[in-house]
Amino acid sequence: MDVISVIRTKRDRGELSPEQIDWVIDAYTRGEVADEQMSALAMAILLNGMNRAEIARWTAAMIASGERMDFSALSRPTADKHSTGGVGDKITLPLAPLVAACGAAVPQLSGRGLGHTGGTLDKLEAIPGWRALLSNAEMLDVLDSTGAVICAAGDGLAPADRKLYALRDVTGTVEAIPLIASSIMSKKIAEGTGSLVLDVKVGSGAFMKTVEDARELAATMVGLGTDHGVRTVALLTDMSTPLGRTAGNALEVRESVEVLAGGGPADVVELTLALAREMLDAAGLTDADPAKALADGSAMDVWRRMISAQGGDPDAKLPVAREQHVVTAPASGVLTRLDAYGVGVAAWRLGAGRARKEDPVQAGAGVELHAKPGETVTAGQPLLTLHTDTPEKFDYALQALADTYDVAPAGTAYEATPVVRERIA
Amino acid sequence: MDVISVIRTKRDRGELSPEQIDWVIDAYTRGEVADEQMSALAMAILLNGMNRAEIARWTAAMIASGERMDFSALSRPTADKHSTGGVGDKITLPLAPLVAACGAAVPQLSGRGLGHTGGTLDKLEAIPGWRALLSNAEMLDVLDSTGAVICAAGDGLAPADRKLYALRDVTGTVEAIPLIASSIMSKKIAEGTGSLVLDVKVGSGAFMKTVEDARELAATMVGLGTDHGVRTVALLTDMSTPLGRTAGNALEVRESVEVLAGGGPADVVELTLALAREMLDAAGLTDADPAKALADGSAMDVWRRMISAQGGDPDAKLPVAREQHVVTAPASGVLTRLDAYGVGVAAWRLGAGRARKEDPVQAGAGVELHAKPGETVTAGQPLLTLHTDTPEKFDYALQALADTYDVAPAGTAYEATPVVRERIA
Repeated sequence: MDVISVIRTKRDRGELSPEQIDWVIDAYTRGEVADEQMSALAMAILLNGMNRAEIARWTAAMIASGERMDFSALSRPTADKHSTGGVGDKITLPLAPLVAACGAAVPQLSGRGLGHTGGTLDKLEAIPGWRALLSNAEMLDVLDSTGAVICAAGDGLAPADRKLYALRDVTGTVEAIPLIASSIMSKKIAEGTGSLVLDVKVGSGAFMKTVEDARELAATMVGLGTDHGVRTVALLTDMSTPLGRTAGNALEVRESVEVLAGGGPADVVELTLALAREMLDAAGLTDADPAKALADGSAMDVWRRMISAQGGDPDAKLPVAREQHVVTAPASGVLTRLDAYGVGVAAWRLGAGRARKEDPVQAGAGVELHAKPGETVTAGQPLLTLHTDTPEKFDYALQALADTYDVAPAGTAYEATPVVRERIA
Repeated sequence: MDVISVIRTKRDRGELSPEQIDWVIDAYTRGEVADEQMSALAMAILLNGMNRAEIARWTAAMIASGERMDFSALSRPTADKHSTGGVGDKITLPLAPLVAACGAAVPQLSGRGLGHTGGTLDKLEAIPGWRALLSNAEMLDVLDSTGAVICAAGDGLAPADRKLYALRDVTGTVEAIPLIASSIMSKKIAEGTGSLVLDVKVGSGAFMKTVEDARELAATMVGLGTDHGVRTVALLTDMSTPLGRTAGNALEVRESVEVLAGGGPADVVELTLALAREMLDAAGLTDADPAKALADGSAMDVWRRMISAQGGDPDAKLPVAREQHVVTAPASGVLTRLDAYGVGVAAWRLGAGRARKEDPVQAGAGVELHAKPGETVTAGQPLLTLHTDTPEKFDYALQALADTYDVAPAGTAYEATPVVRERIA
């Protein structure tokens, strides 16, 4: 087997054989296939595609590159969720304790933000003392004692994917549906969950800009999960505007706690409950009532225990950015558009996200939304508040917001995009 | 400027701007753009193409990455030739001294073989004592005193191309017309020749398998040369079967000397004279008579002086491989096919070529042809003789020859492919 013949096969629009896929993933993980060879192959896959059999084998090879976890010793059924990433997407924070409060075990191995989308671990690290890095034993202990755990994935899980993901990030080969699907699913399957709910974002703030692309990605991932014995369902959800009223780390933790306290923005509550119901159904807990678990405080109880078990203080004051800048509404009328991508880039530039893996993030930085699309605004009222510890970045963040919102005359009809657009199972 | 936006532009079928091209070539040469980024870009170029303006700029940027040579101090007009590479293509060996004997200065900066095509320097190194590596001063000295020099290109010439060529070789991105054209022409233009004749091979043993591809490559290169003030013409020549009756290093030197002595295979003589006439015309020496220079021994005189000037002994006995294996004709009749690619791969496996840049080659290894397509053979007569110092490779070489020749019943009509198929200027 030689790597050039594998690259040529895909370059010339052929189908990679199971042997070619197994070999190239293994050889890349071992360092026998070089980065420059894998990136050429990734570009050929991006441009020429892979069929279902190729994607399934690619995913299986990435799973086989590392260890697999096993939750079968737990007394509860496991339920897991993955989001493809968006702006203001803090759903994991209220969702994991909520689903645990309803009887499932929720092992959420999460990531950090890169570019304009935030990362769950970055958000939780805004809580003083909270630790993302747990050993496998610690993870199982938190999961067993509280019902939920949110932590970083260990190095042993799908190492081929970790290496390939870092490579794709610097070679313009991120946006390939076969590679996105196999990257997500190899980690989730290796993680050993019994059921999985996928939140596939669609819109300007998501990787998938069109419903067609999101549908293809969702169907590919559902197929992969099902083929590996994981009950998998996907929701296509809106990411044309940010979720909730905040994008940033501490800002989103605060909003998540509001949801756990029974309040919070309507879209965040709606999506949290929709995903909770899917996770509970997939785990076989069809009688559970997540709305009740939010209302009666039992989800909040799990949250507090989960945060404490990982060293965090659930009562600690959250960090606040040193400087604020208010953007006001340019006219009175109806806010008909507030673009997720623009807000995400602004939050990133203010310090909430990172440009390189090794960069730090600011806990307090981000963007607060004072109006959501469909709401009425008055000229001069606050529309957005920008938060940062590095006020020299305000101008740079404001550039990203230049063409991100529209205010139409009062009375203009506004048709809201539903939060959940489609369900694919 | 950042490399990911450059990669994305081409990935998404856009046109690279002059600024993007200048930046990415310079940054790659300096090491700021990594190999894995350039290989992703090369694959995107291979699959999505470049237009004439992009190719011209890409070539200019590669020329600008290094030094340019200047032959204007020579008393004779310079003429240069480049072949895209084939099996048994020893034409440079008789051609350079022949054109010099007719009054031009012929600076042939040549390469080594990689894969199934041989390299001019490897062939000449079969001559005891001959040195490929000359300083610029030595090169000019040999050129000035003998009229011709065949040597390795210095490190200072188009360093961007050298780096990119080595990368393409290991990443399955060699076969891209824009990259082949710019690679060849950047070196030839930087070399400073006044005129250039391109021998673009077409057929199974060539990079270009079809006349359409060969025509596109030839037209692209002629355009690039003309745009840079180099009188450039291309011949499309046949590479469906090996040139001459040998493929290998010492074997091809021997055949070249036969041509210089006024004999040799008809196809080698025909192509050598056709290219010589084009080179002399392009150099303005329209009255020269290359056929006479072959017949009267003046080309042989230049050859002997040129070889001696580079440390070689033109009278030395050439190396012979330790072992031979004869392949016989399976039937009596007309040889209707003898595939260049199969013979090239066999010669390579016998030790005439190399799999990696750093591998050595065997001077004596190769394949000798006892019949050419169109000739009559008798069952059991020698068809090919395989030569090697490593007889354990005979089986491996024979595999490459498994389906490379056809013998049809005597009297079967055979239509020969002309040696020179088209002329593009």
